Amino acid sequence: MEIQKVCILGAGNLGSRVALQSAISGYQVTVYDIDPNAFENAKKTMSKILYQLEKEGIVTKEDSTDSMNRIHFTLDVQEAVNEADIINESVLEDVEIKQKVWTQFGEIAPEKTIFTTNTSYLLPSMFASFTGRPEKFCALHFHDVFYSRVVDIMPHLGTDPTLIPLLEEFGKSLNQVPVLVKKENHGYIFNSMLMAFVGAAGKLLTNDVANISDIDKSWMVNFHMPMGPFGILDSVGLDTAWHVTRNMPDKSSQAFAALLKTYIDAGKLGEKSGEGFYSYPKPSYRDADFLR
Amino acid sequence: MEIQKVCILGAGNLGSRVALQSAISGYQVTVYDIDPNAFENAKKTMSKILYQLEKEGIVTKEDSTDSMNRIHFTLDVQEAVNEADIINESVLEDVEIKQKVWTQFGEIAPEKTIFTTNTSYLLPSMFASFTGRPEKFCALHFHDVFYSRVVDIMPHLGTDPTLIPLLEEFGKSLNQVPVLVKKENHGYIFNSMLMAFVGAAGKLLTNDVANISDIDKSWMVNFHMPMGPFGILDSVGLDTAWHVTRNMPDKSSQAFAALLKTYIDAGKLGEKSGEGFYSYPKPSYRDADFLR
Repeated sequence: MEIQKVCILGAGNLGSRVALQSAISGYQVTVYDIDPNAFENAKKTMSKILYQLEKEGIVTKEDSTDSMNRIHFTLDVQEAVNEADIINESVLEDVEIKQKVWTQFGEIAPEKTIFTTNTSYLLPSMFASFTGRPEKFCALHFHDVFYSRVVDIMPHLGTDPTLIPLLEEFGKSLNQVPVLVKKENHGYIFNSMLMAFVGAAGKLLTNDVANISDIDKSWMVNFHMPMGPFGILDSVGLDTAWHVTRNMPDKSSQAFAALLKTYIDAGKLGEKSGEGFYSYPKPSYRDADFLR
Repeated sequence: MEIQKVCILGAGNLGSRVALQSAISGYQVTVYDIDPNAFENAKKTMSKILYQLEKEGIVTKEDSTDSMNRIHFTLDVQEAVNEADIINESVLEDVEIKQKVWTQFGEIAPEKTIFTTNTSYLLPSMFASFTGRPEKFCALHFHDVFYSRVVDIMPHLGTDPTLIPLLEEFGKSLNQVPVLVKKENHGYIFNSMLMAFVGAAGKLLTNDVANISDIDKSWMVNFHMPMGPFGILDSVGLDTAWHVTRNMPDKSSQAFAALLKTYIDAGKLGEKSGEGFYSYPKPSYRDADFLR
């Protein structure tokens, strides 16, 4: 089958990005949300990204206009899935909400429609039976689409294997690097590694082996990267990091979760709240003399 | 005190690099080794690095000549430590050898000489008493000096605290970013995090969650890095990685150590043997189309 029409469920940050890249790649796109305000934010996100892509010479002004014209925003479920070849779902990271959404769309979507979820920490097997078409259901997990161009393809046990090459091609057509997660794994591939090294950084801190800036400096200088683990945590959000960390049973994860909680209780959620391990908008790790 | 004369024990790869940077920074340097052949290799290493630094416009031809003129190679222990303000030791990563070396130099070095060890995985407290001057002894651990410009300062419990700022200044004078490891920790700061994410990569592989190239792609694309965990392991050496991993008690480290052993038994030690997870000199992760 050939994918021509893409339906995005959830007009949040990630949904907007997947929708925009789909339109840039030439697909017809519908974006569904229950909240009309979400569309305004989505359009702002898309405009900002297009402005940046134009500045970098990746798209022309005309490409931007054409892309936006290929995106249709709708509050109507029927309109959203009409003739859709594939759905990519980025609704709230909540098991019940996702189960409800998949039940609803399982009933009204055309038979041909492939169902994919963009869940970050949940597993496709939690929703497969609700879709009514488990064999056509798979996780298709984007990172940030434009800077981190990886897309994880993670089937559940009941996914039809012929779906995999199709999703790989679809991922490539969206300018992504597709990687296959052969069996269900919390955190896919990259997030598993990210959590491991960020956890090691947390352990160094809670065991008082080194301070925040020296830990970040070690990472930044050795890997020539613009931020270290605590800068990354600030950008992920300390609340999100806490949700993941507190579910890990080992002693050092628990100690780090307890430390994260003290930040959260003080209103320090990272970049989005203006303060986390660093103060924003000008965190010290971006200072020219930080790496001295 | 002012550091003017630097003594390097061990003319291997790391010793050569620290010696060269010390000379570039204007210090008088003696390099000691028991094997005269080591000096020939050291000179080759230094010439290669200077050639590269000249090409990049970091040093002039004249700087290179001056630097090499500041380095004196010697097989004579007395000549090596004569008037040395600091010793940085990079001999074999073997407890008994290091203890023997520190006993010897503890007896003959001037009273003023600061003793530092470049050990990668051992701890300064294992050698402190052998030096005869534990208060003047500290780990000063370089990474590769020119590309990864971090230097770890890791005191043992008996290190005089006034030594720390002095070593920080010395590190900065060598164009390094000094970081403080407040208490002894195997793997300092960076290596702790490196081992954690490489261990997570190993777990993904041994649990058959993803294959080598998809794991590396995920890391490379998300972090815009030139290699992923398995490329890094090939560059570190699978034998070194095995030594570290097999000493970790958890089940997934043991499974990964067992996998590494199968590579080692097949003569695949990574880049240095021509084959590891990838084949060298042209590993597929450097192909233009690897990230497609």
